Amino acid sequence: MRKSVLLGTLLLSFGCSANSDALPAWNDTPTKQAIEKWIQETTRDGSPDFIPLNKRYVVFDNDGTLWPEAPLTFQLQFAVDEIKRMAPEHPEWQKDPLIAAVLENDLKAVAASGEKGLLRLVALTHSGMTTEAFAARVRDWLDTHKDKRTGCRYDRMGYQPMRQLLDYLRANGFKTWIISGGGIDFMRVMSDSMYGIPPEQVVGSFSLSDYSLGEKGVELQKTMKGAFNDDGASKPVAIHLFMGQRPVAAFGNSDGDLAMLQYAASNPDAKTFGLLVHHTDAAREYAYDSPPTASGKLVEGLSLAKQKGWVVVDMKQDWKTVFDPSLCSGK
Amino acid sequence: MRKSVLLGTLLLSFGCSANSDALPAWNDTPTKQAIEKWIQETTRDGSPDFIPLNKRYVVFDNDGTLWPEAPLTFQLQFAVDEIKRMAPEHPEWQKDPLIAAVLENDLKAVAASGEKGLLRLVALTHSGMTTEAFAARVRDWLDTHKDKRTGCRYDRMGYQPMRQLLDYLRANGFKTWIISGGGIDFMRVMSDSMYGIPPEQVVGSFSLSDYSLGEKGVELQKTMKGAFNDDGASKPVAIHLFMGQRPVAAFGNSDGDLAMLQYAASNPDAKTFGLLVHHTDAAREYAYDSPPTASGKLVEGLSLAKQKGWVVVDMKQDWKTVFDPSLCSGK
Repeated sequence: MRKSVLLGTLLLSFGCSANSDALPAWNDTPTKQAIEKWIQETTRDGSPDFIPLNKRYVVFDNDGTLWPEAPLTFQLQFAVDEIKRMAPEHPEWQKDPLIAAVLENDLKAVAASGEKGLLRLVALTHSGMTTEAFAARVRDWLDTHKDKRTGCRYDRMGYQPMRQLLDYLRANGFKTWIISGGGIDFMRVMSDSMYGIPPEQVVGSFSLSDYSLGEKGVELQKTMKGAFNDDGASKPVAIHLFMGQRPVAAFGNSDGDLAMLQYAASNPDAKTFGLLVHHTDAAREYAYDSPPTASGKLVEGLSLAKQKGWVVVDMKQDWKTVFDPSLCSGK
Repeated sequence: MRKSVLLGTLLLSFGCSANSDALPAWNDTPTKQAIEKWIQETTRDGSPDFIPLNKRYVVFDNDGTLWPEAPLTFQLQFAVDEIKRMAPEHPEWQKDPLIAAVLENDLKAVAASGEKGLLRLVALTHSGMTTEAFAARVRDWLDTHKDKRTGCRYDRMGYQPMRQLLDYLRANGFKTWIISGGGIDFMRVMSDSMYGIPPEQVVGSFSLSDYSLGEKGVELQKTMKGAFNDDGASKPVAIHLFMGQRPVAAFGNSDGDLAMLQYAASNPDAKTFGLLVHHTDAAREYAYDSPPTASGKLVEGLSLAKQKGWVVVDMKQDWKTVFDPSLCSGK
């Protein structure tokens, strides 16, 4: 009995791959066709563009590429919510204008505090506890907070078309990685359930932890030491450090991802692929980098994409659904 | 036809695993039995100590654990050989006492230069070139140099019992990682062919590279910036950073590995395993940490192993072969 079930399963999976649509959340546009064509050309036996299995490494940005980054990045929202949770235990914060702005939801004042202010919020909420206590706080936050606009849990707001693309790539032997400006310890809490990506394939901004050995054994305390901001030109540096090789494809959504896309594009050993998600869908998501509401996030990228032959996803035109309706019904 | 071949292969691989000896290079001693027992107890369906697949992460030191580290670590030997290769192009080195010591094979003088001297040799040979040029140099060095004592290529001197252990662990669903004081870019050149470990599962001492975009596309230049020395208490820090979770087993050979073994041992979610390789075999390898030739490398470890129940490999007693005779006939 067992043999035949096993055999049936194998035949079924072989038989399906050629005909079924691996990307049903994508409309049948040139964007989808370009993705399918590249995957087929680089994985079909005998293809002149065949990429061997041990070279099939592809990298994805997270914020704005795999899930939303508006109105705040979800990690900044976490920091804001953590400050609110922690404030009653910190009377010394009462005279602090940055904390006051957070508690009063004055996001303009928070933004005006600049990089220094943001780093301080990160330090207050992302250091001074063990790595395991931090992960527990992120899990607790996910369990108790929802995105205001959609009413969905944050960890159910992955873009469905991108999740299907990740699955499709993995079904074709690609190792999928996240290379994001987001915090490495933050993302690793939800990367496996949201994207099917294990913690070690998630790279982000990081700091070094402090080792201590006590009664409970080894604990690692989160600090801000050796802080590495994984954005822009630092993304290829992080890819080399963590992944140890040049990717054959890169997927992003902002000018901060261009160095990573260039790094993949200049891989001499493969026919490479680049893709930028363009936020054009104010009704179902956001349209923050399209005129007239340009945020300046994706300016150089749009012209560079033409020159380099990178695919630009028009969310409004190319995506049948934005969020997975079984997880998050959207707006 | 294809179906039946496939089915046959599957049945064969299922049928074999229970009876065959996965560790033929190990003598049948309590050491081998302890290894087999732990793997069986943590992977057998229904076992009270069963570890789920997504938690089966195990970490190995490299120098002295997977290959020799005497008389010099092989990476220091590489640095020495590189200095010799480069010297004719650097007339300015002629008056430098450290370089002179290297060129005259005066290892005592090199050692006497201390950490500062060693760091200088590393900087001269491990920075100032692209990551890809560095990898090519390591490959070229491997192709043109042999270990004096055995006459073997350095990348054929992995310990056969440990390679079999890596394979055995992987066959049981464990993800095998290297966590070493050695240079990350150096080890990644040979880790796949020697140990079956892909580059991204090799962690070592590292520095950050410099990004540049020129006519050839993106290049990463090796520097000494942000240098991280992956030894002692820094090993758990690196494990958290790269692997993102606590291992369930750790394998080392020196007191520099104890923090990593403690980190695994205090994993609250698993029956853990620790192992130390004790260099006791002067005839087939080296006996540098046994009295009367104690190097001080493994002192605390031997007493801690008793207390923690870690397995200590006695190379002379426990290993049937040291090197794989088909790759390196040994002494």
